[in-house]
Amino acid sequence: MADTITPREEDYSQWYIDLVRSAKLADYSDVRGCMVIRPNGYAIWEKMQAALDGMFKATGHVNAYFPLFIPESYIQKEADHIEGFAPECAVVTHGGGEELAEKLYVRPTSETVIWASYKKWIQSYRDLPLLINQWANVVRWEMRTRLFLRTSEFLWQEGHTAHATPEEAQDEVLRMINVYKTFAEEYMAMPVLIGRKTDSEKFAGADETWCIEAMMQDKKALQAGTSHNLGQNFAKAFDCQFQSKNGTLEYVWATSWGVSTRLIGALIMAHSDDRGLVLPPKLASRQVVIVPILRGDKQAVAEKAHALADELNSNGIHAFVDDSEQNSPGWKFAEYELQGIPVRLEIGPRDISSNICIAARRDTGEKQQIALDDTFAASISSLLDAIQQSMFKSALEFREANTREVSSYEDFKKCIDKGFLIAHWDGTEETETKIKEETKATIRLIPEDPDFRKKYSMDEPGICICSGNPSKGKVVFAKAY
Amino acid sequence: MADTITPREEDYSQWYIDLVRSAKLADYSDVRGCMVIRPNGYAIWEKMQAALDGMFKATGHVNAYFPLFIPESYIQKEADHIEGFAPECAVVTHGGGEELAEKLYVRPTSETVIWASYKKWIQSYRDLPLLINQWANVVRWEMRTRLFLRTSEFLWQEGHTAHATPEEAQDEVLRMINVYKTFAEEYMAMPVLIGRKTDSEKFAGADETWCIEAMMQDKKALQAGTSHNLGQNFAKAFDCQFQSKNGTLEYVWATSWGVSTRLIGALIMAHSDDRGLVLPPKLASRQVVIVPILRGDKQAVAEKAHALADELNSNGIHAFVDDSEQNSPGWKFAEYELQGIPVRLEIGPRDISSNICIAARRDTGEKQQIALDDTFAASISSLLDAIQQSMFKSALEFREANTREVSSYEDFKKCIDKGFLIAHWDGTEETETKIKEETKATIRLIPEDPDFRKKYSMDEPGICICSGNPSKGKVVFAKAY
Repeated sequence: MADTITPREEDYSQWYIDLVRSAKLADYSDVRGCMVIRPNGYAIWEKMQAALDGMFKATGHVNAYFPLFIPESYIQKEADHIEGFAPECAVVTHGGGEELAEKLYVRPTSETVIWASYKKWIQSYRDLPLLINQWANVVRWEMRTRLFLRTSEFLWQEGHTAHATPEEAQDEVLRMINVYKTFAEEYMAMPVLIGRKTDSEKFAGADETWCIEAMMQDKKALQAGTSHNLGQNFAKAFDCQFQSKNGTLEYVWATSWGVSTRLIGALIMAHSDDRGLVLPPKLASRQVVIVPILRGDKQAVAEKAHALADELNSNGIHAFVDDSEQNSPGWKFAEYELQGIPVRLEIGPRDISSNICIAARRDTGEKQQIALDDTFAASISSLLDAIQQSMFKSALEFREANTREVSSYEDFKKCIDKGFLIAHWDGTEETETKIKEETKATIRLIPEDPDFRKKYSMDEPGICICSGNPSKGKVVFAKAY
Repeated sequence: MADTITPREEDYSQWYIDLVRSAKLADYSDVRGCMVIRPNGYAIWEKMQAALDGMFKATGHVNAYFPLFIPESYIQKEADHIEGFAPECAVVTHGGGEELAEKLYVRPTSETVIWASYKKWIQSYRDLPLLINQWANVVRWEMRTRLFLRTSEFLWQEGHTAHATPEEAQDEVLRMINVYKTFAEEYMAMPVLIGRKTDSEKFAGADETWCIEAMMQDKKALQAGTSHNLGQNFAKAFDCQFQSKNGTLEYVWATSWGVSTRLIGALIMAHSDDRGLVLPPKLASRQVVIVPILRGDKQAVAEKAHALADELNSNGIHAFVDDSEQNSPGWKFAEYELQGIPVRLEIGPRDISSNICIAARRDTGEKQQIALDDTFAASISSLLDAIQQSMFKSALEFREANTREVSSYEDFKKCIDKGFLIAHWDGTEETETKIKEETKATIRLIPEDPDFRKKYSMDEPGICICSGNPSKGKVVFAKAY
């Protein structure tokens, strides 16, 4: 059962650690910054993978697998890339008992090893577009780690596409960041802002990085996914040219995009509470737990519970029964609340004779009677839909209530722990760095959603809150994970 | 289109390499022995994963993820294990720009890192059994590599279970090797023998290793999956004890079992031919290709082809149309034969007016007419079933025709390139080594299938074919991949 979970109000960081441990989602291993993803945590990742993989395939992508090890000479081919990644790599120097002639980097991301293959595969415009995704582990040596959110090894998917024109590449960048937005909002029930990163925050080797940013319950931002327009940078680094329809030789245009097990951390921080995990129904591998109240004719009660579970499962709802007599109903209620099962059904002898059961929602704690007639499965299905939607709505309201415009640096500093701040910025890296040093806040994104831009008049010129210099428009600042 | 594929008769090894390259299944990378699994190859792995994962879950297992890196001190805890694996490991010595205090081994298998966690998770018999599987990449530095069959990095799954009694552990070992046998036979259409390895061939750290062995078309054996009874070896190495029902402290009993991307190599070598890949329908992500013969009213023909594909897809059969005018029907026939699509449908204007189409089987090349009426989808479904069964039957007949008993060492040497040899062995490692050195043949397994044992009177005592010493029973020898 649950170890004690520190309340969020008391210590949000400790709450997160306690929850991850108590719900058995992940552990640290003895290797610095590497985590063990326990079965309860991995089940969430499997649901995420299935949904995302379906969305990638529906947009024309196929999966492949590229090597874990990257020769040092590859990493060095793209100047920005090596500068960004080499310092955080794990390096293999020995293999098969001997020192290697060339050091191997454990992939921190796979652009280089993939473009070495693409160079072999792409000759003509007929070979394009190439739309490939990979599910893999990557390693980035991290100084400060936090389970799921920042670990030295993590699991992710990385899409790598090759195109004949910059327009097609840009379409792909936007298509995929929108796939991520749809996934975050429809599956994770987590509203996100969509937009571009500033130059100093973009991917090492990209011309432009798009991102989705979510707000956690402590009002900090979390980058949940990125989609990069790599221009011709990697094609040039790996000399990957193709014969165009006109017969000319041109460098290929590239994108890459990814999300990782970090999303599990985001999911926890967006929705969970002091009693444990709260999972949106679409990402719960177990959606309904049935707890029979074993009084009177215990066997009849247990049988009814199993019959209800069978009925739900045959209607595509993942239900299970806990009819063990070792633990009390109260213990079970707490345990499955900790585990985030979206709906709990309680059924006892009196319920059976009244032909009802009690459904308790994990998200709000509300209870309601459900009739045990031929509307039963449909009622539970509607309830799950309602939970999914209401979790999204709550998170959206929370974000909106904690997003504000500020027009002075004084206000900015006063409000920076209160959520997303919309403010004018002069567009220079110098000012961006100064604000970061003085307030720990970063520019999360230059939002690109037209409604959002309109709502906050983001295109109106003004005065930079920090430097006082002219600003062409506003951006979104926040402290972030 | 296809590069030329060397015929099997001419050079079997070259045929395999040519096929893997031409069908775009995999490439070598610039990193020694590491492969790129291309989309066509990875699609087979995804089908294998889905089927196996379903079978693991149906037998009560859950998935998790453990770290890629293993501290040197872990690997050293189990004496046989380090002796077996340390020499073939890749070693990380630097991370984040600094030399590490302790070297990290890139996992060659995960027993050690997993048992370090199990020690934390297991206190009481109530925590058992623990039935966990992991899908992961592993690295074993190989001197001689061959795409899919033996590569320095490969993908696999590794099950790791913990039990309260040796009987439960042994039940698990047998349950999982039988899951592998079922998968090999029902999905891969590849018959396998099931049995135990000799002591010299067992897993480093196991008390007993069970395996499945298949015969390739060149009559060599291929080990397709293993299931190990680890006894209390890892529990003792990691001091993992539990409180039994009786209140005593006991070491936990363990198993591990795995199959890898090697199965893709096995699948190719078991069934494919000189025209390319032959895929069993259950592992084909694309089961039916429809090639419209674009004459007369081209649009009507193309539309009919798409309507048929839709009908098949809505009946759960994965069909697609190639109606490009860039390539001829003949080119398409050869291309989809190369890719191993189990059924090709050809449809032209005359077929439409006769309300039929022509179906060509990839495995046998046989053609037949299929009526385009309300029996259409059912006919194709039956045809796919027939192909699946007939591929298994052919492979089984081939293995049986190439399995023979030999009673002299002279016959043994004469027949060792002709398939599986059943022969008496005196049970000593000395004789096993001598036979291996002199003939390159190894004991593939001590078969445990009762029918097989009976057929070849394997329990009858006799005289070892090599040493002339008494033998308690026969074993299966072969040259192997």
